[in-house]
Amino acid sequence: MNFELTNELLDSIKASIESKSELFIKNELSELYPADIATILYELSGEDAHYIMQFLDTEKGADVLSSIDSDDRKRFVGEHFTIEEIATYVNLFDSDDAVDFLNEQTIEVREKVIALLEDREHARFILDLLHYPEDVAGGLMQKELIKVYENQNVSECIEEIRNQLESVDKVYAVYVVDEDNCLKGIVSLKEIVLARKNTKIGNLLMEDIVSVDTTVPGEEVAELMQRYDLEALPVVNAIGRLLGRITIDDVVDFITERAEEDFQAVTGITGEVEEDDTVWKLAKSRLPWLVVGVLGSLMAATVIKGFESQLARVTALALFIPIMGSTGGNVGIQTSSLIVQSLAEKSALSLSLSERLFKIAKVALINGFVISVLAGVYLYAIGESQLFLVVCLALLAVVFLASFMGTVTPLLLDKVGINPAVASGPFITTANDLVGIGTYFLIAHWLL
Amino acid sequence: MNFELTNELLDSIKASIESKSELFIKNELSELYPADIATILYELSGEDAHYIMQFLDTEKGADVLSSIDSDDRKRFVGEHFTIEEIATYVNLFDSDDAVDFLNEQTIEVREKVIALLEDREHARFILDLLHYPEDVAGGLMQKELIKVYENQNVSECIEEIRNQLESVDKVYAVYVVDEDNCLKGIVSLKEIVLARKNTKIGNLLMEDIVSVDTTVPGEEVAELMQRYDLEALPVVNAIGRLLGRITIDDVVDFITERAEEDFQAVTGITGEVEEDDTVWKLAKSRLPWLVVGVLGSLMAATVIKGFESQLARVTALALFIPIMGSTGGNVGIQTSSLIVQSLAEKSALSLSLSERLFKIAKVALINGFVISVLAGVYLYAIGESQLFLVVCLALLAVVFLASFMGTVTPLLLDKVGINPAVASGPFITTANDLVGIGTYFLIAHWLL
Repeated sequence: MNFELTNELLDSIKASIESKSELFIKNELSELYPADIATILYELSGEDAHYIMQFLDTEKGADVLSSIDSDDRKRFVGEHFTIEEIATYVNLFDSDDAVDFLNEQTIEVREKVIALLEDREHARFILDLLHYPEDVAGGLMQKELIKVYENQNVSECIEEIRNQLESVDKVYAVYVVDEDNCLKGIVSLKEIVLARKNTKIGNLLMEDIVSVDTTVPGEEVAELMQRYDLEALPVVNAIGRLLGRITIDDVVDFITERAEEDFQAVTGITGEVEEDDTVWKLAKSRLPWLVVGVLGSLMAATVIKGFESQLARVTALALFIPIMGSTGGNVGIQTSSLIVQSLAEKSALSLSLSERLFKIAKVALINGFVISVLAGVYLYAIGESQLFLVVCLALLAVVFLASFMGTVTPLLLDKVGINPAVASGPFITTANDLVGIGTYFLIAHWLL
Repeated sequence: MNFELTNELLDSIKASIESKSELFIKNELSELYPADIATILYELSGEDAHYIMQFLDTEKGADVLSSIDSDDRKRFVGEHFTIEEIATYVNLFDSDDAVDFLNEQTIEVREKVIALLEDREHARFILDLLHYPEDVAGGLMQKELIKVYENQNVSECIEEIRNQLESVDKVYAVYVVDEDNCLKGIVSLKEIVLARKNTKIGNLLMEDIVSVDTTVPGEEVAELMQRYDLEALPVVNAIGRLLGRITIDDVVDFITERAEEDFQAVTGITGEVEEDDTVWKLAKSRLPWLVVGVLGSLMAATVIKGFESQLARVTALALFIPIMGSTGGNVGIQTSSLIVQSLAEKSALSLSLSERLFKIAKVALINGFVISVLAGVYLYAIGESQLFLVVCLALLAVVFLASFMGTVTPLLLDKVGINPAVASGPFITTANDLVGIGTYFLIAHWLL
């Protein structure tokens, strides 16, 4: 039942494109879901992918296009589709998908396509949505929804659903508004199924509902929908007028993308890349943080150079350069990741900075002690006990400093509006490498 | 509209608990959603939280309980609730939530509660679900759903929905089965709203639907529901009998939890902890990987000790210990994070091992070259050009080795069934620290 793209399937499709076996292609595609056809298109050349699209009816073609990743789609559509073709598909997209799609293309293409749209209400929807940033409620919402008045009855409401059948794919609930288009509440589809035809909508109304303003960040939208188990969240303007709704599928995509971004950020990868991107793109995505790491390490080298006479006297000091760097890095990233996580949970009562630091200092004391004991035992075992005080004190200091930086850095980044996950990973590691090694040699300088 | 827990609200609730102002508490709670009441309970003592629960009707109380995190709920319920109280709430849970809830308690409590359940069908549902692991389709599904036969008509179907109103909270679609309970297809709630009352269900049937077996892993369930934009996914057994359904809210929770786990894993934190856990728990969550890091660094120290005579001769060698360690660590984690990510995307056509390694070698060549140039310039700048060949060769070797390990480690872990994210973070960093420093000194030994 579940689709998996095999090399056999891919080869047979490629062969049938080569031999232009139209019937075979049509048959093969008719059995597949749009998302699965998209998976196949990724593996074909742009030209072949465009050729295949011709065998789909436009509705299915639009679904296929809306399943393709933004970057790939931008290139694919930009290079192979005419303005008229683009307009045909955009006509069939939900307004939010249409806007995402058009935002990938040049302003020129965008304007020409909008001018070509047959459905003028759809064009107006798109123009309305175009000016919202993509990661706030306004950018996540779609204009398509079922809207009724309180004094309408259930059968009028059903008629409204029937009229909007084409444009509103998933209904979930109908939105009840007053004559000023202000949101009064919702009626779930289940209620409508169960109600008598002549029941007034006002009698079924659930008034106490969650809604958001267009400016609410996507993270908060996701948190709300998850918190209250919502499939759709209405979006209103400052005076409560209903503008659109955000559906759960878009939020699931948003959550997944954000999680991937955070995961990549903390592992030092810049920009959204995947394993199947080009070698150049992959290399480029890694270089920024590698270079930062190298520069940090060269600064550490400069610090060590400053203590070269020390080192020439006691070469054993060099043995503990790695432990200072790695402990600093590990503690820093562990601390920052918990802060990043607690920043993401907006609804929880968060600790004050002094409470945070005090708690983290206690954790640092416990872990610093355990690490120092391990290092101390090792020092005696290899017969370098003269370094005992230096190494243990330095490790304790490193754990404290790294904990402090791991706490403060993401909080500062969050304050200035940078995703704290981005700079928490390699930045923390590099900074702590440097601080760790500097602290170590300073202490060695004082004590030896 | 959107709830935020303030210190004022919390203080006023604590004060009213102290003074037993029942009316005030009742009023305050009646205006809040269950998820928000749960947020308040986190901040109260177990005793106070239990006291507050008494002012909620049992339905809302059950919703509050199902919003509380598993660990907190286990302790809270285990310490403060009688068997009878637990049974009252479990009666009102959906079967999947009831099972999650009961699995937190001891077997003894679980059995006593099930024996007390008034609704015997509900008890049977729970017993059915108890034996599935929590992270596969069987463990994510609920038994509550609307089921009809092909030859029934729409008004019989609506009657069925009405009968199940209490137990099936979100309908989405009705499931159509044959006399053997085998799944034939679904009819969406929207179709039912729009159809005439005497239309046969068979005529509305959508047959070509996605379903899963009970053993399908949660990750795959999430991928499918996201891929095909589903709000509910039917679960069938090996011969196609309908067993239950998985709803999107549970999948959203699953995705979020997994993302948090991966994020924590890659940053070296063990077990699910949050900033507001106790100092001991926080310290314990960090120690395992800190200790691994320390042991790795001490092994690196031992390696360096083996080259101590070398180091005594050329102390400048010590300057480049940090760059070897940090470059190895950074490259390793960057490489592994992309592999971890591509492993998560099951539906894509993945590269073979040799293709992967070849591609990664090319990326390593580019980045290794850039890093070596930076380090080379630095060497000339500080007048240590005699180390040029050693440092540049070692850096290239380290980038290659770290890329190789970053590729192979997650693939191996995935093969043996360990979440590759868990051991990709600090494990890769530690291993590469060690390998990097070893390679560096070996090359220095040969060339100097």
